[in-house]
Amino acid sequence: MPGTIDAKLAELGLTLPEPAAPLANYVGYNVVGNLVVVSGQIPLVDGQIAVTGKVGVTATVEQAQQAARICFLNLLAQLKAAAGGDLDRVARVVRLGGFIAAPPEFHGHAQVMNGASDLCVEIFGDKGRHARTTVGVPSLPGNATVEVEGMFELAPVAGAAGGGGRGGRAAARAALSPEQRAERKAARAALSPEQRAERRAARGAAKGQKGEARKEKRAARATQGKGKGRRKAPEA
Amino acid sequence: MPGTIDAKLAELGLTLPEPAAPLANYVGYNVVGNLVVVSGQIPLVDGQIAVTGKVGVTATVEQAQQAARICFLNLLAQLKAAAGGDLDRVARVVRLGGFIAAPPEFHGHAQVMNGASDLCVEIFGDKGRHARTTVGVPSLPGNATVEVEGMFELAPVAGAAGGGGRGGRAAARAALSPEQRAERKAARAALSPEQRAERRAARGAAKGQKGEARKEKRAARATQGKGKGRRKAPEA
Amino acid sequence: MPGTIDAKLAELGLTLPEPAAPLANYVGYNVVGNLVVVSGQIPLVDGQIAVTGKVGVTATVEQAQQAARICFLNLLAQLKAAAGGDLDRVARVVRLGGFIAAPPEFHGHAQVMNGASDLCVEIFGDKGRHARTTVGVPSLPGNATVEVEGMFELAPVAGAAGGGGRGGRAAARAALSPEQRAERKAARAALSPEQRAERRAARGAAKGQKGEARKEKRAARATQGKGKGRRKAPEA
Repeated sequence: MPGTIDAKLAELGLTLPEPAAPLANYVGYNVVGNLVVVSGQIPLVDGQIAVTGKVGVTATVEQAQQAARICFLNLLAQLKAAAGGDLDRVARVVRLGGFIAAPPEFHGHAQVMNGASDLCVEIFGDKGRHARTTVGVPSLPGNATVEVEGMFELAPVAGAAGGGGRGGRAAARAALSPEQRAERKAARAALSPEQRAERRAARGAAKGQKGEARKEKRAARATQGKGKGRRKAPEA
Repeated sequence: MPGTIDAKLAELGLTLPEPAAPLANYVGYNVVGNLVVVSGQIPLVDGQIAVTGKVGVTATVEQAQQAARICFLNLLAQLKAAAGGDLDRVARVVRLGGFIAAPPEFHGHAQVMNGASDLCVEIFGDKGRHARTTVGVPSLPGNATVEVEGMFELAPVAGAAGGGGRGGRAAARAALSPEQRAERKAARAALSPEQRAERRAARGAAKGQKGEARKEKRAARATQGKGKGRRKAPEA
Repeated sequence: MPGTIDAKLAELGLTLPEPAAPLANYVGYNVVGNLVVVSGQIPLVDGQIAVTGKVGVTATVEQAQQAARICFLNLLAQLKAAAGGDLDRVARVVRLGGFIAAPPEFHGHAQVMNGASDLCVEIFGDKGRHARTTVGVPSLPGNATVEVEGMFELAPVAGAAGGGGRGGRAAARAALSPEQRAERKAARAALSPEQRAERRAARGAAKGQKGEARKEKRAARATQGKGKGRRKAPEA
């Protein structure tokens, strides 16, 4: 059952890539409060940089716009992972930062960056109207023509607002990567009815005990950390 | 009835421009929580870029500093719109980012950026002391010499502080800078016991009008929303 | 009594410099909520820029990596001041931004920036895994080879959570993510009336020590404030 944004992507004939693997000690995104900060993305398609060189030298403005579109799709892939797989949780595209590799005499950076901005609003509508900074650079990692970074706002998870016992677990689930969910689902499926009853009982007991609740919280954080370690971003 | 910052602008003989119209699918600013993220501003004056080309080539350091000042005024125009027209709501200039178009042999970027930083502190005083990143670039949108972006913190709207129970006041206190806290503490210390009793009574009355204060807050937010629709940013 | 991160620094044989003095109307960092925004740092050692010029021209990749390491140490010095001297309060390195001075034909920016990223994770472990944007620039302030800026998340101060009356708890609540809030709400909902009475009593006892807790908190703030006054940033 795809969300609204997933449906929009399908309607536009767009497929999100897998969030790219980091080749270094950094990650594709970080979440702080309800802000998602996504690493600078280059126009990577299937592990290859699709558009290289400088605009006006080895790449046309149209090719560079296409590069900016690809960068935005790569941002979206990271964002989707950050939102626990649900792009409908995105409340606002807060800011896009665009870096355009070009010689000193090039001045059409804004036109190139519109490749990302237009796609953003096409997908997200009014929520996609973002603050933006666009500048020229002499060169980018891997000789990419464009690099785009982003900051996004997530809405609080629906369950969290309503409160209650389920809210906390729903929120924890929302923070999991799709891989983590699949893993947990598989683990649950493997439980016998007795084990399930045990887990339910354990949960009830934990609710009464602050110390236990804290342990759970720590465990949830640790799990999240591991998921983060696994996801991969392009070298930029 | 102009605010403190408006009065300061008048004293300095400065007039804010209309926030520039976006020529694309992005906006001049976005507000997330109490953070305002403003798009990169170029030295646009009446729709024309006032200073173009590279520092040390077609623009002097002095001209580039003037460009940085203009960029900051354009940032302020966006910020004022973001603050619902009230620059006194600005609690802190959190960060300025400066991009200086210059050849590889130029190293005086910081001096150029001081054009924006000095004006910022001249206008906002201690609240204007900002974190800053300044770098050189080969070229900027429209051949501008300087581009400046900004992040700002807004204080909660007055209605929120005055209106409510302890929560409202605690939030307002948390939003104050150490300087503001010291100021308020000094003001409190200067009150007579009768004045204190009066203030407590006034607070009690305010609590009775909590519903009204909330309506006001909602109205302020609605206005802000409308401002967002109308505001316009330069192509950068 | 050094903290965990201080011990790690000692183990790595690293000494943090004094946070550099700002030569202009800007500061080394700003704190907004639990976010620390640190100014762009250049590879300043004892007031001198340790590595200058462009990578691949006057500096090797190895020298540039070393420059990135130094930039990160300078970031840490600012961060430590922002955290009131306690680097163990750092909950997450949210984002690093790297600017590498290089000619247009250079494409190894990511490799250079790894100098900062690797040291970051070496020091902070999983908390150090950051979002990252790396780009080339024609030149940097003072002819530095690398400039690195950063955004960090602080954990709420221990005193605020454990200590006090309404103020401390309100602040602690404000610092929680929606998920954490939902979890806590769920935990509270699960308490029996007896457990609630117990918690209220415990809080009452804590309030008896409120004066002490507040004094501590004020002292922490004063140190932070003073740190801000004293701290100095390189001209960047």
